[in-house]
Amino acid sequence: MDSAIVGSWAPGAVPKMTAAIKLQQLLGGAPIGVVGLGLIGGSLGLDLRAQGLRVQALVHRAATAERAQERGLADAVSTDPQVLGGCGLVVLALPLDRLLDPDPALVAALPPAAVVTDVGSVKAPLLARWEPLLAGRFVAGHPMAGTAQAGVEAGERHLFEGRPWVATPSARTDPGALALVEALAGAVGARWCCCAAADHDRAVAMISHLPVLLGAALLQAAATAGGPVGGPTGDSSENSQLPALLRQLASSGFADTTRVGGGNPELGTLMARCNREELLAALNQYEGQLQGLRRLVEASDWAGLQASLSACAQERPEFL
Amino acid sequence: MDSAIVGSWAPGAVPKMTAAIKLQQLLGGAPIGVVGLGLIGGSLGLDLRAQGLRVQALVHRAATAERAQERGLADAVSTDPQVLGGCGLVVLALPLDRLLDPDPALVAALPPAAVVTDVGSVKAPLLARWEPLLAGRFVAGHPMAGTAQAGVEAGERHLFEGRPWVATPSARTDPGALALVEALAGAVGARWCCCAAADHDRAVAMISHLPVLLGAALLQAAATAGGPVGGPTGDSSENSQLPALLRQLASSGFADTTRVGGGNPELGTLMARCNREELLAALNQYEGQLQGLRRLVEASDWAGLQASLSACAQERPEFL
Repeated sequence: MDSAIVGSWAPGAVPKMTAAIKLQQLLGGAPIGVVGLGLIGGSLGLDLRAQGLRVQALVHRAATAERAQERGLADAVSTDPQVLGGCGLVVLALPLDRLLDPDPALVAALPPAAVVTDVGSVKAPLLARWEPLLAGRFVAGHPMAGTAQAGVEAGERHLFEGRPWVATPSARTDPGALALVEALAGAVGARWCCCAAADHDRAVAMISHLPVLLGAALLQAAATAGGPVGGPTGDSSENSQLPALLRQLASSGFADTTRVGGGNPELGTLMARCNREELLAALNQYEGQLQGLRRLVEASDWAGLQASLSACAQERPEFL
Repeated sequence: MDSAIVGSWAPGAVPKMTAAIKLQQLLGGAPIGVVGLGLIGGSLGLDLRAQGLRVQALVHRAATAERAQERGLADAVSTDPQVLGGCGLVVLALPLDRLLDPDPALVAALPPAAVVTDVGSVKAPLLARWEPLLAGRFVAGHPMAGTAQAGVEAGERHLFEGRPWVATPSARTDPGALALVEALAGAVGARWCCCAAADHDRAVAMISHLPVLLGAALLQAAATAGGPVGGPTGDSSENSQLPALLRQLASSGFADTTRVGGGNPELGTLMARCNREELLAALNQYEGQLQGLRRLVEASDWAGLQASLSACAQERPEFL
């Protein structure tokens, strides 16, 4: 891919309205299709409509369509794929599993000339799935914004403000199609970032998917500590006071470290399933580091441990 | 120890003023000594003085004494251990290393009849160090409150409000001494909790000390990913884009999971040093859980992974 645009950040600085006008011009007045009106799709609909753009949405259930209309998530909402007719850009705002195994009726209903982009949190498998269907018209994307909410009630204004919107174009991606999605990201105030799909997937495995496993393992260890013997990883010395004490004394440090590990189980499982190899590679790197820290504690090398923790304290701000 | 008081919670419900009056009565009007006016000692001084109790403080440096006076952290502040003369209760609000290896002049200056308590975050070694010196007059304690601040500027009102104040009495602990420290905790609005020192140390190893290592290992893994080959745990496939990408895309999930791992290196090292065996035991339990999750991912057992993550999502609220 063009290394000149790797990691570049553009419209984050450009006013949203300018990007919206450019998007409108590139679309030649054609409406924007949004498939799925959950947190991402619903938030997109609200922001795009606020910018004066027309949004036509496809949803799975009639009840969702009705509620989406009430909330004003789109100008038109239907369970009939024909609602996408005439759209110049279609955003597939669906869960990873439905993006990897799309409804044939949806694929058939995509306008022949429309640019199609997705919002999946893993990119290489989606590029492999959709590029053969749409060639250069497909732009693999990942707006990295989220809340704990999901479903038709979750969409909110300004969700993407200042957040990264990653695109992972391939050599086949049409530059015009990429520019259209860049304008979309700019119109909702996101920070545009282009990189290779493999780099994206490796990065999110480390910073987003691995923390789920770490927090989950800590929760399981704390939940089983002092409990009855049995689980191969259970605390062998049974202690009737410890389980209650752990729950009484856990404070903000434990709460923060386990937040994503105690999050949405379906989402965590889908991410692991779709990014399995990179997640296992990140886990290997993590375990290497953890073993290094363990050896310092085992050797009572307190100067070494303090040097490692000092380096961590210095490095962390680079990630915030 | 008396199992009837294990895990019990009293003055958290009792109004602070009632506890302060009880404390005043138990002290027979004698002042309270505070050794060290950092976050814990300074906050104690402010809250106790606000309750009308007299606080006499011992600090290490003249500059600290001057600033502490300006801030009103105590009624009298001195670098001379004699300032503790006449105190009926002395709170050792010092770092773990100085509690484990106390200044002989401090030990010599402790009033012969005074109840002495500490605020160290590891209890068994402190009980072993101080009980031979003071017998039943020493009450091992751990007010579990903190901020990112430290030093003479860190003390603040209401720091202990609703937070656990753990005491770990032994068979030798005088019940009257324990009641005095319970009144102290109540006077600053803390939730009183008694347990065995070994249980406290095992619990904090899991919920407080282990999360430091986990967050630090994740930070080190993310900081070295894609970097030049070299470190035994470095990413072998060098990638010039990945380091920048990891820092651009890291968001709240990564920030929360690594918060304590990127915290105060001196404190993290002291906790590991003073609670080494329990920390290594907690790390073993954690690694057992992490290996279980790894096996589910390696086996592509997505139903099993989702079941584990669902259990974590259900268990987490018990710790908050």
